[in-house]
Amino acid sequence: MGINEPLNRKLRMGLVGGGQGSFIGRVHSIAACLDNRAVLVAGALSSDAERSKASAPSYDIAPSRAYGSYEAMLDAESKLPTGERIDFISVTTPNHTHYEIAKAAVQAGFNVICDKPMTFDLAQAEDLLKTVEESDVIFAVSHNYTGYPLVRMAREMILAGELGEIQAIRAQYVQGWLRTKLEEENQKQASWRTDPGKSGAAGAFGDIATHAFNLGRYMTGLKPESVSCHLKSFVEGRVLDDYGTAVIRYENGGLGTVTASQISHGRENDLTIEIDGTKGALQWRQENPNEMIVRQNGRPHQIYTRDPNAPHMTTSGAAACRLPSGHPEGFFEGFANVYASAFDDMAIRGGGESINRRDTVYPNVYDGVEGMFFIQQCVQSSQENAAWLPLLHPAARR
Amino acid sequence: MGINEPLNRKLRMGLVGGGQGSFIGRVHSIAACLDNRAVLVAGALSSDAERSKASAPSYDIAPSRAYGSYEAMLDAESKLPTGERIDFISVTTPNHTHYEIAKAAVQAGFNVICDKPMTFDLAQAEDLLKTVEESDVIFAVSHNYTGYPLVRMAREMILAGELGEIQAIRAQYVQGWLRTKLEEENQKQASWRTDPGKSGAAGAFGDIATHAFNLGRYMTGLKPESVSCHLKSFVEGRVLDDYGTAVIRYENGGLGTVTASQISHGRENDLTIEIDGTKGALQWRQENPNEMIVRQNGRPHQIYTRDPNAPHMTTSGAAACRLPSGHPEGFFEGFANVYASAFDDMAIRGGGESINRRDTVYPNVYDGVEGMFFIQQCVQSSQENAAWLPLLHPAARR
Amino acid sequence: MGINEPLNRKLRMGLVGGGQGSFIGRVHSIAACLDNRAVLVAGALSSDAERSKASAPSYDIAPSRAYGSYEAMLDAESKLPTGERIDFISVTTPNHTHYEIAKAAVQAGFNVICDKPMTFDLAQAEDLLKTVEESDVIFAVSHNYTGYPLVRMAREMILAGELGEIQAIRAQYVQGWLRTKLEEENQKQASWRTDPGKSGAAGAFGDIATHAFNLGRYMTGLKPESVSCHLKSFVEGRVLDDYGTAVIRYENGGLGTVTASQISHGRENDLTIEIDGTKGALQWRQENPNEMIVRQNGRPHQIYTRDPNAPHMTTSGAAACRLPSGHPEGFFEGFANVYASAFDDMAIRGGGESINRRDTVYPNVYDGVEGMFFIQQCVQSSQENAAWLPLLHPAARR
Amino acid sequence: MGINEPLNRKLRMGLVGGGQGSFIGRVHSIAACLDNRAVLVAGALSSDAERSKASAPSYDIAPSRAYGSYEAMLDAESKLPTGERIDFISVTTPNHTHYEIAKAAVQAGFNVICDKPMTFDLAQAEDLLKTVEESDVIFAVSHNYTGYPLVRMAREMILAGELGEIQAIRAQYVQGWLRTKLEEENQKQASWRTDPGKSGAAGAFGDIATHAFNLGRYMTGLKPESVSCHLKSFVEGRVLDDYGTAVIRYENGGLGTVTASQISHGRENDLTIEIDGTKGALQWRQENPNEMIVRQNGRPHQIYTRDPNAPHMTTSGAAACRLPSGHPEGFFEGFANVYASAFDDMAIRGGGESINRRDTVYPNVYDGVEGMFFIQQCVQSSQENAAWLPLLHPAARR
Repeated sequence: MGINEPLNRKLRMGLVGGGQGSFIGRVHSIAACLDNRAVLVAGALSSDAERSKASAPSYDIAPSRAYGSYEAMLDAESKLPTGERIDFISVTTPNHTHYEIAKAAVQAGFNVICDKPMTFDLAQAEDLLKTVEESDVIFAVSHNYTGYPLVRMAREMILAGELGEIQAIRAQYVQGWLRTKLEEENQKQASWRTDPGKSGAAGAFGDIATHAFNLGRYMTGLKPESVSCHLKSFVEGRVLDDYGTAVIRYENGGLGTVTASQISHGRENDLTIEIDGTKGALQWRQENPNEMIVRQNGRPHQIYTRDPNAPHMTTSGAAACRLPSGHPEGFFEGFANVYASAFDDMAIRGGGESINRRDTVYPNVYDGVEGMFFIQQCVQSSQENAAWLPLLHPAARR
Repeated sequence: MGINEPLNRKLRMGLVGGGQGSFIGRVHSIAACLDNRAVLVAGALSSDAERSKASAPSYDIAPSRAYGSYEAMLDAESKLPTGERIDFISVTTPNHTHYEIAKAAVQAGFNVICDKPMTFDLAQAEDLLKTVEESDVIFAVSHNYTGYPLVRMAREMILAGELGEIQAIRAQYVQGWLRTKLEEENQKQASWRTDPGKSGAAGAFGDIATHAFNLGRYMTGLKPESVSCHLKSFVEGRVLDDYGTAVIRYENGGLGTVTASQISHGRENDLTIEIDGTKGALQWRQENPNEMIVRQNGRPHQIYTRDPNAPHMTTSGAAACRLPSGHPEGFFEGFANVYASAFDDMAIRGGGESINRRDTVYPNVYDGVEGMFFIQQCVQSSQENAAWLPLLHPAARR
Repeated sequence: MGINEPLNRKLRMGLVGGGQGSFIGRVHSIAACLDNRAVLVAGALSSDAERSKASAPSYDIAPSRAYGSYEAMLDAESKLPTGERIDFISVTTPNHTHYEIAKAAVQAGFNVICDKPMTFDLAQAEDLLKTVEESDVIFAVSHNYTGYPLVRMAREMILAGELGEIQAIRAQYVQGWLRTKLEEENQKQASWRTDPGKSGAAGAFGDIATHAFNLGRYMTGLKPESVSCHLKSFVEGRVLDDYGTAVIRYENGGLGTVTASQISHGRENDLTIEIDGTKGALQWRQENPNEMIVRQNGRPHQIYTRDPNAPHMTTSGAAACRLPSGHPEGFFEGFANVYASAFDDMAIRGGGESINRRDTVYPNVYDGVEGMFFIQQCVQSSQENAAWLPLLHPAARR
Repeated sequence: MGINEPLNRKLRMGLVGGGQGSFIGRVHSIAACLDNRAVLVAGALSSDAERSKASAPSYDIAPSRAYGSYEAMLDAESKLPTGERIDFISVTTPNHTHYEIAKAAVQAGFNVICDKPMTFDLAQAEDLLKTVEESDVIFAVSHNYTGYPLVRMAREMILAGELGEIQAIRAQYVQGWLRTKLEEENQKQASWRTDPGKSGAAGAFGDIATHAFNLGRYMTGLKPESVSCHLKSFVEGRVLDDYGTAVIRYENGGLGTVTASQISHGRENDLTIEIDGTKGALQWRQENPNEMIVRQNGRPHQIYTRDPNAPHMTTSGAAACRLPSGHPEGFFEGFANVYASAFDDMAIRGGGESINRRDTVYPNVYDGVEGMFFIQQCVQSSQENAAWLPLLHPAARR
């Protein structure tokens, strides 16, 4: 099955969040529907019932399925005939609300695509994991950067041993948009992301360092052992971190670093990763996602482009391409690939076959728990003078 | 109106071409529907009636509207009630069939998005122009590279005089996929593109040099005066050109060059343009479309990124963005912007207002004629030892 | 013999030109002495005798050998004992004076390194060639860009057939410093370079397009057949060209383009070349000279770095390196390599062995003649509406 | 005074180290003599007396001044008349010998340019500092990357407050040449650098992380407070570190990271630094040293090129340029600038004026002590489970 393959039927999407001023809700809806394998039919677009309904037309959601709350949506949709009700729910609200929405959706038997970080804190994450395990739903977490074709190719190469034993991972995620105290200017994105009551225990580390950490985990499969972290709130008066660096020891003796910044002037969404193995090394940068540099001593540097027809392209990499090489793909396609892979499993679930829900191509609830554990341990380590704390959660993937 | 603004209703799309093995048909359908402002409801997907119908499910087209031919589609759709029938037709078939399909559609009153080059030869293009002028349909030609936000920004900057008088344009479009005689290996794309009976008088020059020429025209508005061209068929036995270079004199005394190659090893879809004005210069590359370099003597080089929120971003550039800076947009979004701008005019047409169909944001039938004239004059110039031939068609835009 | 190998003795250099305000004279002296294989001992640094002597201390030239004119230098040095007199003369004066200086030096038996373009016009070049052929001196022309290690490697690869038959060469040399009428501001470099009485028949084409043309010739060995050229003087009131483009047909059927600009805002010294062969293609850019991109269909793009120890590095490329990879080399080293190769031949000459003075690693008097022929034919073609004129001079190298 | 200004007389250089197989000795001699302001006249090129003398001709050192040992050189040169004896000694031997040579040279009254790390351990460094302070010699340490014009410009900009308060420094130095156990293949460079008896307590951290740390210190002037470090010896059986990462707290609350690798496949000499301030941010990469990116929110990214004539270029940056923009400068020129600045002070010393030997443009003995302290604390921190240790040595510069 692939991104251009029709499912036996289109999946029906219900969106939570995405109302006026939202960024990520719109992204989810475009990503989900990009391949015409899903259609957005229902929404609880805002915590404000009025606003929720008012936002529906811009998503082409019929008034009858524009709900005033997620509870109303779950309730009403559950009562619809199987052939009409939504198949999955996308949770795109601020962090502090993920848990209750996602849990309720799972309990109601709906598949879930949940924005990251998965929950507000680790306890919620662990409880949600339990709920998912007790259900048979498909549950994905939108660590969307794992959807880029070259990221999937890198993962496949590394897991196949092409780079040898992995010894070092350097991941960096640098932005500049919170350089000033934007949260005081009523900028919606800045307001909730810097608010410990909505964002959780971490700021930049919850928002973006989790992506960088997850990317290294996803691409290499290395299991983390412990972490030492140092967080800063450089902008005066800000409570949550806007900068930080974590050093990670992996179980195999490898060493990793994750640095995140939201205060670096002019930097946009600069997530980069470098991975060193005994047989080769690679480098990838999200802002130029159609290229990856692979190096081996004694050989020219190799630029692998996103080329579904190239001999160097792996199966999973090629399967994630929608366009031939030289025709740039971007953020939406990467995001859509997370959906596409989850859709494949949803279709199988529908078909009754058994599904491995732990070792999936898309990031799942286990990754979500790991992400919350990463945040918790980083924050605590930072509070304890960068003490070394365990980083391997019992639920860790693989 | 903008790409995220809902139209008063979704537009209904009919697709001609796009069957199995097609590349560009799929692109059109994704681009058209990306913003949820249009829906694909009907198709004549192949010249083979059986294949046409068989391809419909993968586009989620209902069997009842999967037609065996474009004539059947036009006929049947015309008879549907206004509220059901398709609003526009996308012509994505090989070049030699564009004319009859597009003309019939226009005459039937349907808006048209036509792939480029617009027709098989200039005579067809001129006749089609006449047909369009006699109608009131919206007609767009998919010179999709004009849809990139930074291209639109550059155009707005240049037309506003920010670079001063434009004196030089260097455009280059370099590919490598026809380095070998792929047309003998039954590769569908290669077969028709190298076949004079299907592709027209030119090969690489019709396929890609037209884009490069159009891009310079679009970004600067400079009117061409004459052209001297030199075409080569480097691969033995190939009839049409796979390489060539054209020198262009513009009416204002400026000088341009357009070079196109399909035989450059390893090159993918490398369309680049450099524009020199008396006050500034710029440079843009399609394979990295989210950046543009703007230079002025005495100042640091400036990298303008695609940033809808930046002070440097122009209105038309910002309006063409779907994502904040650092979140790469690509080929689909650029393509979709051509559709989005045409949709805006289609909606106005529906509303009865008068529309300027000549000076549009999207490439239109006049650009289509210019493109065909460019091809004809280049081929003839090359045949006459690179003689200088006129390049300004009477119908030229602006 | 190599750049780090001592000659049996240091060579003694006499510099003509290089006085106050000179750029290229200083470059020659540094390049010649970089490897400690030559020492600057005499100079006629300015056409003004006073200034000439006043400039000597900054070059560490003893007063006794700071001459008031090149004639005085040649005369006096000729009378010195063999073990003291200069071995070679570097001609770094404005173009219109090269001929008389170089010819006199050759006739006096001194080896010559002559700046490019070699002479003021073709007639002078042809006469100088005759003079050189009648002598046994070593004569080099400072097409310094041929000295970069990766350029030499590319040449060796291409001549060995690694890229197959060469079919296309795209060379471009873009600067911006003459965007304004700098020559009216008493800027010394601008003044003589835009003055037909000093620079010759061409401006940008004599100054920089010759380099671009020479680079293609040097790297590929392709023999040119004919040229069509279009020159522009974009800055109002300027007599010589500041922009132009030439299309070149090569004898083997290949096609080339050379574009030169001195009016492109913000561009510095941007010489780039792309070469397409039937088996591979390459791309190199002077402003980033330690990298070259080599491409082949079906393989990742390869970045060859300047790495004397890499398996991919050819003999001539490695021999031109002074530093390990990652330690950037630049303009001086490339320039010095032209000297170094000429020194090798000078040392052999000293030793009495016979020398092939036509097919040298460094650009020689034959290249100088070709360059002057290129300028003449380009200017004439431009005057004749870009007519096709022959481009293969009987004296052409190889 | 500047790099093109003659000193009142040429300075005479004595070289220690640089015999056959040496890399850095040759670099020192070229860098010192690049501007013709110094001449290499004496050498103790190897610890083996025979080899020392045999290497002299390749440096153009007269046999009479080709010494068998540094002691012999100091002794003999001290006895020469002032107008003949060497002015300075360059110490380019393996680390464990720096101390005795440099100390003896200082005590003999010779100026010294010492390779980094300055000594074998901190105790030696502190003692050497004392010796220098008791003398009046000029003492420079070859942290050569501080010599690049754009680095000096960045420093001047930052010290002038153009980037505001500096809050974060990310420095990374990545190589790949020690990926395999090269030290077992009799590779001279690898052998001593991985030998604790010759290299000191650290491997990669002594060899290259010191450069990265120094670069941040030099460019920002931020004083370090404490460090937590994690070193690895990834290649089996290697005693010293070949990989590591250090987190640094600066006195002003800023956070820094220094990562060094010698085991990253294909990486050459990739030293990069990113600096974030409250008003702006910058980024520079040694392998492309002629460009620096400066960013500010709300403005296009700015590429500052090495352009001595640009308005953006600072005084110290311009003074360090030898070529106009677009003419690449490289490693040698940067190295030579450290010499050039030290020469300026040597000339002043000769003239009797008083000199500030602490706050110099070139890295000095205080920087050398800081570097040794950095190494010691990093090694110790790593041994103590990445414990936080003080990093501000009492002798720290500024």
